[in-house]
Amino acid sequence: MFDLDDAIRMEDKPNDLLTIGELLVDMISDDYDDAFECDGYTKFFGGSPSNIAINVKRLGIRSHIAAAVGEDGLGTFLVNRLRMAGMGTDGIQRIDEPTSMVVVTKSKATPIPVFYRGADYQLVYNQSLDRVLKNSKAVHFSCWPISRVPSRRAVERAIEEAREHGLLIGFDPNYHRMIWQRDEDGVAYVKSVISKVDIVKPSEDDAERLFGPDSPILQVEKFLELGAKLVIMTLGKDGAIVSNGRETVSFSSLATEIEDTTGAGDAFWSGFYAALVKGYTIKEALRLGFAVSAYKLKYRGAVVNLPGLEAIQEQFGL
Amino acid sequence: MFDLDDAIRMEDKPNDLLTIGELLVDMISDDYDDAFECDGYTKFFGGSPSNIAINVKRLGIRSHIAAAVGEDGLGTFLVNRLRMAGMGTDGIQRIDEPTSMVVVTKSKATPIPVFYRGADYQLVYNQSLDRVLKNSKAVHFSCWPISRVPSRRAVERAIEEAREHGLLIGFDPNYHRMIWQRDEDGVAYVKSVISKVDIVKPSEDDAERLFGPDSPILQVEKFLELGAKLVIMTLGKDGAIVSNGRETVSFSSLATEIEDTTGAGDAFWSGFYAALVKGYTIKEALRLGFAVSAYKLKYRGAVVNLPGLEAIQEQFGL
Repeated sequence: MFDLDDAIRMEDKPNDLLTIGELLVDMISDDYDDAFECDGYTKFFGGSPSNIAINVKRLGIRSHIAAAVGEDGLGTFLVNRLRMAGMGTDGIQRIDEPTSMVVVTKSKATPIPVFYRGADYQLVYNQSLDRVLKNSKAVHFSCWPISRVPSRRAVERAIEEAREHGLLIGFDPNYHRMIWQRDEDGVAYVKSVISKVDIVKPSEDDAERLFGPDSPILQVEKFLELGAKLVIMTLGKDGAIVSNGRETVSFSSLATEIEDTTGAGDAFWSGFYAALVKGYTIKEALRLGFAVSAYKLKYRGAVVNLPGLEAIQEQFGL
Repeated sequence: MFDLDDAIRMEDKPNDLLTIGELLVDMISDDYDDAFECDGYTKFFGGSPSNIAINVKRLGIRSHIAAAVGEDGLGTFLVNRLRMAGMGTDGIQRIDEPTSMVVVTKSKATPIPVFYRGADYQLVYNQSLDRVLKNSKAVHFSCWPISRVPSRRAVERAIEEAREHGLLIGFDPNYHRMIWQRDEDGVAYVKSVISKVDIVKPSEDDAERLFGPDSPILQVEKFLELGAKLVIMTLGKDGAIVSNGRETVSFSSLATEIEDTTGAGDAFWSGFYAALVKGYTIKEALRLGFAVSAYKLKYRGAVVNLPGLEAIQEQFGL
């Protein structure tokens, strides 16, 4: 049981956060275009765990990313961008498959991504991953790597080792049918993973995709029943409901200025992890997560140039 | 045996040329960039058989394309472009896989493509394909659809039916290891296909990838030995050597002005097919193929706004 007024005790380790999962190219249309007639696109460094790893480093903790990219130029581009952000690249596996890419054509309605899965799900649990995992205080992943084999096996092994070695395990249950193989019930599998992790942060849409429509408070119950120790259910501009099964607390969004929502969820995770590692209580860490998210919302792009966590704390008067 | 001074007799049919294979998005970098640091890309309608189908229509014969694209926006974009070119779209199969894409980052050295295979190789031999095939005088395909199953099965069936129904069969043996599955000997399979077709047009690089290095004239022999009836071996600026096994003839390139070589090979095929259908002799059709290729070389882009075949014939004094 996590007490919301306590910090989470973490053993001293050489690394703070390890994120496992997708490092990919986001190819985004330059204009809004519902008919896919816009021909200009721009490529970006992307992948939620990669963004989180870079964010937390900027906020002031140590991080590593484990991911697989192609042996192609796009893979080299991503590795170079990690280096430019001062990240280690030992955890990057180069694979003889195309670097995974998401093509997003911006739309006034809902942007419809086209997923090109290649190298990302070829990630394996190797010695290098084993070493950095055992040297970390916390590990984080989302639905991408568990949606396909063999990366699913790598994450399953990472969860086992993380539990055995006392790491905090965070999971983003961002289930989308489109990244799953057509013939598999991804929902059942995602639920089985929730039972093995400590912290989940579903959005209302995530919860609806997993459990069908229901009120936020009842959705939170379902995640707790599956075995998650802390459920952070985000409600967009309405903040979040957080529960450890005994205490349920509402949090307001701290956003004042919204320039671009891309990466706001990753920014939350980043502030939350950074604060937990720095010894803040869970409630303080949640507030700092919302502060970092609010900071990110003021700027365009998935990864913005975050200052240290303390500067954001001061800016938001926390 | 095709006599180079004769026309190829074709039965009267409602369609002239059917091309089978890839209809895909070419995502091409806006700048030359060896380090993959250029972020701007532009998407183009692409795929060699699709380009040929559009080209021959502009040159004045009837054509159809059979290809598979995704149920996504990029698939819709490609189908819309076919419609804009006045092409029928009955032969386009919509598949629940991402529309195939080739990302090309232009380089001062050799541009290195990254292949994202999705919907393209899900093409099946269905009733619609059966009908248009039997209604056509000639059928054309390249290595794309035969590189993977199930589209390979569709092409094998098309070859069988084409032979039974007296269609002329043209094959571009543009073998590249990268589009093949890693664990399969694509070379052996491509050679087995050459034995079942009428006309092949290898480049020197294609021949070297299939047979290893050798002189052009000896490479031509190898294609003939496998069973091709007419071998058109292109030599870039040095034109081509063509042989039916009894007579071997050299052709000069007709190119005078080279703005962009993309699509020059497809333009050759287009002029050649259009001329054969219009009743020209093989030698005349070859010269018209080189004329259309030379015309295309003067303009930027894979598919240029070709005039009718007769206008090009006149322009090149043929």
